[in-house]
Amino acid sequence: MKIVSIINIVKNTITIGSNIIIQGWVRTIRTSKTGISFIGIYDGSCNSLLQIIAYDKLSNYKNEILRITSGCSLVVTGVLKKSPGIGQYFELEAYKIKVIGWIKNPDSYPISAKYHTLEHLREFAHLRPRTSLIGAITRVRHTLAQAIHRFLSEQGFFWVTTPIITTSDTEGAGEMFRVSTLDYNKLPRNNIGEVDFTKDFFGNESFLTVSGQLNCEAYALAMSKVYTFGPVFRAEKSNTSRHLAEFWMVEPEVAFASLNEIIIIAEKMLKYIFNAVLVERYDDMLFFVRNIDKKVIVRIESFKNFNFTQIEYHNAIEILNTCNKKFEKQVFWGIDLSSEHERYLTENYFNSPVIIKNYPKDIKAFYMRLNEDNKTVAAFDILMPGVGEIIGGSQREERCDMLDNRLDEMSIKKENYQWYRDLRCYGTVPHSGFGLGFDRLISYVTGVSNLREVVPFPRTQRSALF
Amino acid sequence: MKIVSIINIVKNTITIGSNIIIQGWVRTIRTSKTGISFIGIYDGSCNSLLQIIAYDKLSNYKNEILRITSGCSLVVTGVLKKSPGIGQYFELEAYKIKVIGWIKNPDSYPISAKYHTLEHLREFAHLRPRTSLIGAITRVRHTLAQAIHRFLSEQGFFWVTTPIITTSDTEGAGEMFRVSTLDYNKLPRNNIGEVDFTKDFFGNESFLTVSGQLNCEAYALAMSKVYTFGPVFRAEKSNTSRHLAEFWMVEPEVAFASLNEIIIIAEKMLKYIFNAVLVERYDDMLFFVRNIDKKVIVRIESFKNFNFTQIEYHNAIEILNTCNKKFEKQVFWGIDLSSEHERYLTENYFNSPVIIKNYPKDIKAFYMRLNEDNKTVAAFDILMPGVGEIIGGSQREERCDMLDNRLDEMSIKKENYQWYRDLRCYGTVPHSGFGLGFDRLISYVTGVSNLREVVPFPRTQRSALF
Repeated sequence: MKIVSIINIVKNTITIGSNIIIQGWVRTIRTSKTGISFIGIYDGSCNSLLQIIAYDKLSNYKNEILRITSGCSLVVTGVLKKSPGIGQYFELEAYKIKVIGWIKNPDSYPISAKYHTLEHLREFAHLRPRTSLIGAITRVRHTLAQAIHRFLSEQGFFWVTTPIITTSDTEGAGEMFRVSTLDYNKLPRNNIGEVDFTKDFFGNESFLTVSGQLNCEAYALAMSKVYTFGPVFRAEKSNTSRHLAEFWMVEPEVAFASLNEIIIIAEKMLKYIFNAVLVERYDDMLFFVRNIDKKVIVRIESFKNFNFTQIEYHNAIEILNTCNKKFEKQVFWGIDLSSEHERYLTENYFNSPVIIKNYPKDIKAFYMRLNEDNKTVAAFDILMPGVGEIIGGSQREERCDMLDNRLDEMSIKKENYQWYRDLRCYGTVPHSGFGLGFDRLISYVTGVSNLREVVPFPRTQRSALF
Repeated sequence: MKIVSIINIVKNTITIGSNIIIQGWVRTIRTSKTGISFIGIYDGSCNSLLQIIAYDKLSNYKNEILRITSGCSLVVTGVLKKSPGIGQYFELEAYKIKVIGWIKNPDSYPISAKYHTLEHLREFAHLRPRTSLIGAITRVRHTLAQAIHRFLSEQGFFWVTTPIITTSDTEGAGEMFRVSTLDYNKLPRNNIGEVDFTKDFFGNESFLTVSGQLNCEAYALAMSKVYTFGPVFRAEKSNTSRHLAEFWMVEPEVAFASLNEIIIIAEKMLKYIFNAVLVERYDDMLFFVRNIDKKVIVRIESFKNFNFTQIEYHNAIEILNTCNKKFEKQVFWGIDLSSEHERYLTENYFNSPVIIKNYPKDIKAFYMRLNEDNKTVAAFDILMPGVGEIIGGSQREERCDMLDNRLDEMSIKKENYQWYRDLRCYGTVPHSGFGLGFDRLISYVTGVSNLREVVPFPRTQRSALF
């Protein structure tokens, strides 16, 4: 007898009349007065439940089937039939139902069939994947991650695992997590009383990485096209729905690519993965339309046909300055755009994703390439309505003398970036890259606004449970 | 004019006679007495160099081409021709060569054309991807990672990002890295003088994960088939060629699967990915045959046709006890097999990969399922000749009372595993999973024995450079 997943049935690959086995968890159950139980079973393979028809002639009907509650695990053997019910095509007429696992104290089961708030579910991050919402998010996350790997691989990129533990800080500053094996009660100290990190595991003060970019550049300058896709960390004390202390980033890096060339790749990648999620997870996307945000399909579908709007930073400033909206933060050339400005541009003015290019150098990182005007750097951000920055990237400064100037200007010690400077001394080439915040991408695609819902076990300030 | 990668030429997708642009780095250069320079250019897209023919009629021949050294970056425009040379099919007759980046002080270029030891290259981890060896490893790593994602996705698995920062320890013990933002010079202390971790970033003592398994189990018990593929960390002070402090693991977890079912999946996955690397990276595999280990292709090819040998742990003990070899560590029922035992079984006795099943419970983790004999657990390891354990897995203890017994036996506090116990109280099902050490896999496939060569930027005791 064949064990099948519900998705195989939904996709019409199982012949009506087949004898099959289904394994899963009860989502719904109701019993008619005529002695038939209707059990909605879920196995995670897709958004749909499969309806099980259980007649009272089953040997364990009275002592087991009637005691089943939401969450019980079952193995059901039966025959697949066309369903006479509205809104479902298939049902399984059971001739054997084995209860594998019961629910201890069904009344206090934390994710029982009744409605729960997202905040409540967050406290049960180990059980919430059993809900329709987290199930749908999990499948969409999977599909987007696979599509990213597939797209980049097809374009000739190689996936590179850049280090998680690092002794350097990509952004020059930023709040980082320390990694150590030193005993807090016996901290080794040097002769001027400072903690002696030469005694620590790595023989050096070590941190969790905030970005794999610099390491990725080393590989791009050998392999031409590479990307990282891994976790990065920020110890920011901003406890908002848009921040996580641990999140995943996709960081492609391309040798010989200019700013405009890397923007084309970024846009092409977004279009590719949006198409993949519509093709492969349409049922889950419909779930988000019905339950979260009715526009999620329409807005990603519209991208497939239109190029993203591109504007220069100075144009963005002009638009913000000449519109009639009052912003909390004053707008002038030189400011870093804040969330209110980004929202106005994407949600009000353009009502679409917007690419902003060539930012003032003083608000950007040392490694971005200085433009001819000596005032701006070849940086770009892709802003999304409702989400804000989803991609940030730049052409990198490949000229050693210019890089040194920037390091000096920003009072960054050159000796800390010796290996990075080497890349410019030996066969340097123009190159560009970007970072895509994977969790923000999921938030954008699903319409689920709090990042704590789109990652399995979120890590935020004062919370690293499970 | 079309910019092409060398792999496109090698794969015969560019018509002979086409005008094309090649971008890359010089690997070799020699100049004939008749005024022709032969430049071997590499762009990372595949193992092959493309030969550039540069005649002295080029305008920058004397002042630039003749000064080119290994490592310089070039953009070459030319016409693709059939090569009259032996061992190469194509060459590019240049009509324009632009030198993009020179090599500063070619005599001291750390990875100049001459031979360097692996130890020397390790000190230049930012430049070593420019060598044939690290290039080939990078492409094979990429192909194996993609094949893993593709295989599991095709089998209905969902990729889940399990947390990197954790407040629990999967293995019960084990050396872990602490993650903290506390200031070492002002450690907060509670009223009995202990460090007060409620003041730390996560409000709790936090560590880097050693495995995503427990979190993966929570998702398997909702989505049926899931896997993690991410970095894990061990602060082991064993500075050998087989250990890294930071490495990547693939951890599939399958609901309703028994030990034998998960073994079938593990074996099928290995066969699938070995096949992928032979199909997609045959040229790189030939490079390893020529330069590292002449058996690498033969041994992975042989797997495609044979099932792996499976033996019970007690059979392994018998074999080791009755063979005539003397081992340093005495062999009897109850010991954990050490490297010399594993090597004897895989390299001498069976001369093939070996799966060992059902180990004594006392040498295995608390979460492994107790067998009927009350002495062994449903665990398995896959051992490879030359590499040792590449996969370790088990059926998990899904019975709450049995799990509690094991926690008690091993003096592990139940309250620390409350959420994990919940998974057994609410709709529990038999389930199984395994962990594949991704870096050891690369080592096995390429024949490169030191793990420091198979990861881009290795992290080991006293070393976290770049």
